[in-house]
Amino acid sequence: MDVISVIRTKRDHGELSDEQIDWVVDAYTRGAVADEQMSALAMAILLNGMTEREISRWTAAMIGSGERLDFSALSRPTVDKHSTGGVGDKITLPLAPLVAACGAAVPQLSGRGLGHTGGTLDKLESIPGWRARLSGEEVLRVLEEVGAVICAAGEGLAPADRKLYALRDVTGTVESIPLIASSIMSKKIAEGTGSLVLDVKVGTGAFMKTLDDARELARTMVALGGDAGVRTVALLTDMSTPLGRTAGNALEVRESVEVLAGGGPSDVVDLTVALAREMLAGAGIDGVDPADALRDGRAMDVWRRMITAQGGDPDAPLPTARETHTVTAPRDGVLTRLDAYAVGLAAWRLGAGRARKEDAVQAGAGVELHAKPGESVRAGQPLLTLHTDTPEVFQYALGALDADALTISPPGTPHAARPVVLERIA
Amino acid sequence: MDVISVIRTKRDHGELSDEQIDWVVDAYTRGAVADEQMSALAMAILLNGMTEREISRWTAAMIGSGERLDFSALSRPTVDKHSTGGVGDKITLPLAPLVAACGAAVPQLSGRGLGHTGGTLDKLESIPGWRARLSGEEVLRVLEEVGAVICAAGEGLAPADRKLYALRDVTGTVESIPLIASSIMSKKIAEGTGSLVLDVKVGTGAFMKTLDDARELARTMVALGGDAGVRTVALLTDMSTPLGRTAGNALEVRESVEVLAGGGPSDVVDLTVALAREMLAGAGIDGVDPADALRDGRAMDVWRRMITAQGGDPDAPLPTARETHTVTAPRDGVLTRLDAYAVGLAAWRLGAGRARKEDAVQAGAGVELHAKPGESVRAGQPLLTLHTDTPEVFQYALGALDADALTISPPGTPHAARPVVLERIA
Repeated sequence: MDVISVIRTKRDHGELSDEQIDWVVDAYTRGAVADEQMSALAMAILLNGMTEREISRWTAAMIGSGERLDFSALSRPTVDKHSTGGVGDKITLPLAPLVAACGAAVPQLSGRGLGHTGGTLDKLESIPGWRARLSGEEVLRVLEEVGAVICAAGEGLAPADRKLYALRDVTGTVESIPLIASSIMSKKIAEGTGSLVLDVKVGTGAFMKTLDDARELARTMVALGGDAGVRTVALLTDMSTPLGRTAGNALEVRESVEVLAGGGPSDVVDLTVALAREMLAGAGIDGVDPADALRDGRAMDVWRRMITAQGGDPDAPLPTARETHTVTAPRDGVLTRLDAYAVGLAAWRLGAGRARKEDAVQAGAGVELHAKPGESVRAGQPLLTLHTDTPEVFQYALGALDADALTISPPGTPHAARPVVLERIA
Repeated sequence: MDVISVIRTKRDHGELSDEQIDWVVDAYTRGAVADEQMSALAMAILLNGMTEREISRWTAAMIGSGERLDFSALSRPTVDKHSTGGVGDKITLPLAPLVAACGAAVPQLSGRGLGHTGGTLDKLESIPGWRARLSGEEVLRVLEEVGAVICAAGEGLAPADRKLYALRDVTGTVESIPLIASSIMSKKIAEGTGSLVLDVKVGTGAFMKTLDDARELARTMVALGGDAGVRTVALLTDMSTPLGRTAGNALEVRESVEVLAGGGPSDVVDLTVALAREMLAGAGIDGVDPADALRDGRAMDVWRRMITAQGGDPDAPLPTARETHTVTAPRDGVLTRLDAYAVGLAAWRLGAGRARKEDAVQAGAGVELHAKPGESVRAGQPLLTLHTDTPEVFQYALGALDADALTISPPGTPHAARPVVLERIA
């Protein structure tokens, strides 16, 4: 077996054999296949595709490159959620405690943000004292005692994916449905969850810009879950405009706590409840309405215990940015467009995100939205507030929010809001 | 400018701008673009192609990455030949002194073999004392005094190509016409020749397996030469069976000396004379018949002076391999197929070639052919002799020469020999 024959097979529109896939994933993990060889193969996969069988085997090989967690000793059924990433997507924060409050165990192994979409761990780290890194024993203990844990995935899970993900990021080979699907699913399957709900984002703020691509990604992942014995369902959800009214780290924690307190923006509440229902169904838990658990404080109770168990103080004031800048409406009208990507980019430029893995993020930075598409606005009314510790970036951040990103149409212009959940794929 | 946007442009079937090409070639040469990024781009180029403008600019950028030689001070016109590489292709050895004997200056900067095709420098190094590495002043002096020099290209010529060539070799991105054409032509144009004749091989023993691919490569290179002001002509020549009756290092030197002495296999003589005529026309030299210069010893005289000028002894006995093994015809018949790739692979396995750049080659190793396609053979007659210093590889080398590679058809089977020169492209 040699790497050039593997690359040539895919380059020349062939199908990789099981042996080729097992060998190349293992050899890359060991360092016997070099980065420049794997990136050429990744580009050939991106351009020439993979069959279902190839994707399934590739995923299995990535799982096999490391350890698998085992939650079978837990007294509750496990269920996990994965989002393909969007702007203002803080759903994991209220969702994990909510589903735990309804009786499932939620082992939410998460990542950090890169680019214009924020990372769950970055958001939670704005809570004073909170730790992302737990040992395997700590994960099990918090899951058993609290029911939900949100923490960093250990180095031992799918190390092939960890290495390949970093490589794809710098070689223009991210946007491949087979590679995205196998990357997500290898981590989730290795993590050992019993069932899985996927939130596949569609729109300008998401990786998948079109419903067709999102559908293909969702179908591919649902099939991979099935192959591995993990009950998997996907919701395709809208990411043409940000979720909720904040994009940032502490800003999103604050909004999540509002949802856990029974309030918060309706799109965040609706998506949280829709995903919770799918997760409970996947875990085999009937007769519990997650909307009740939001209203009556049970979800908030799990949230507080979960934060405390990971060293955080749920009562500590959240950090705020040193400076703010408010953008007001130039005229009366209807906000008909508030582009998710533009807001994500502005939040990133304000310091909420990172350009390189090793960069730090600002806890208080981000964008606060005072109006959402479909709402009427008056001239001079605040539209959005930018938050940052480094006011010299305000102009740079405002550059992302041009007239194309933020449109105010004449008063009375009809605007049909897109539903949050667009499709369900099982 | 950033490398990911360059990769994405080509990946998404776009056309690279002049600025993108100049930047990425320069940044790669400087090390600011990493190998894994360039290999992803090379794969995208291989799969999605380049326009004529892109290839021309890419070539210019590779030339611009290093120094250019200048032969304008020479008293004779310069002309060079490049072969895309074949099995038994020793043509440079008799050709360079022959064309010099007819009045042109031939600066033949050559490479070493990798894979199943031999390298001109490896062949000449089997001559005791001969040195491939000359200084710039030595090259000019030998060219002025002798008229022909065959030596290693300096490190300063097209360093971007040097780096990219080594990368393509290990990443399955060799077989791209834009990348092959720009690699060859950047070196030849930087070398400073006034005119150029290309020998584009077609067949199992060549990179280009089909006439269509060879034609496209030839047309691309002829256009690149024209863009750079170098008069360029290409001959498409047959590489379905080895050239001449030897494939190896010292074995091919011996055959080349036979040709220079007025003898040698007719296909080698015919191709040498055909290429010499094109080179003389390119150099603007009329009224000289190279066939005469082979017959009357003038070419041999230049050969002896050229070898001597580079430290070699033209009268020293050539090395021979320690062991030989002869394959005989199993039955009477007509040899209708003797596959170039199979013979090249056998010679490589015997030690005439190298698997890695840093490997040494055996001077005496190779394959000697006692019959060529179209010739009648008798049962028990020698068909070919394998030469090596390491007889344990005989079985391995014989494995390349199966019934499919070497076919003896019933006596009387008609066999139309392919002409050596198939097409001319100018």
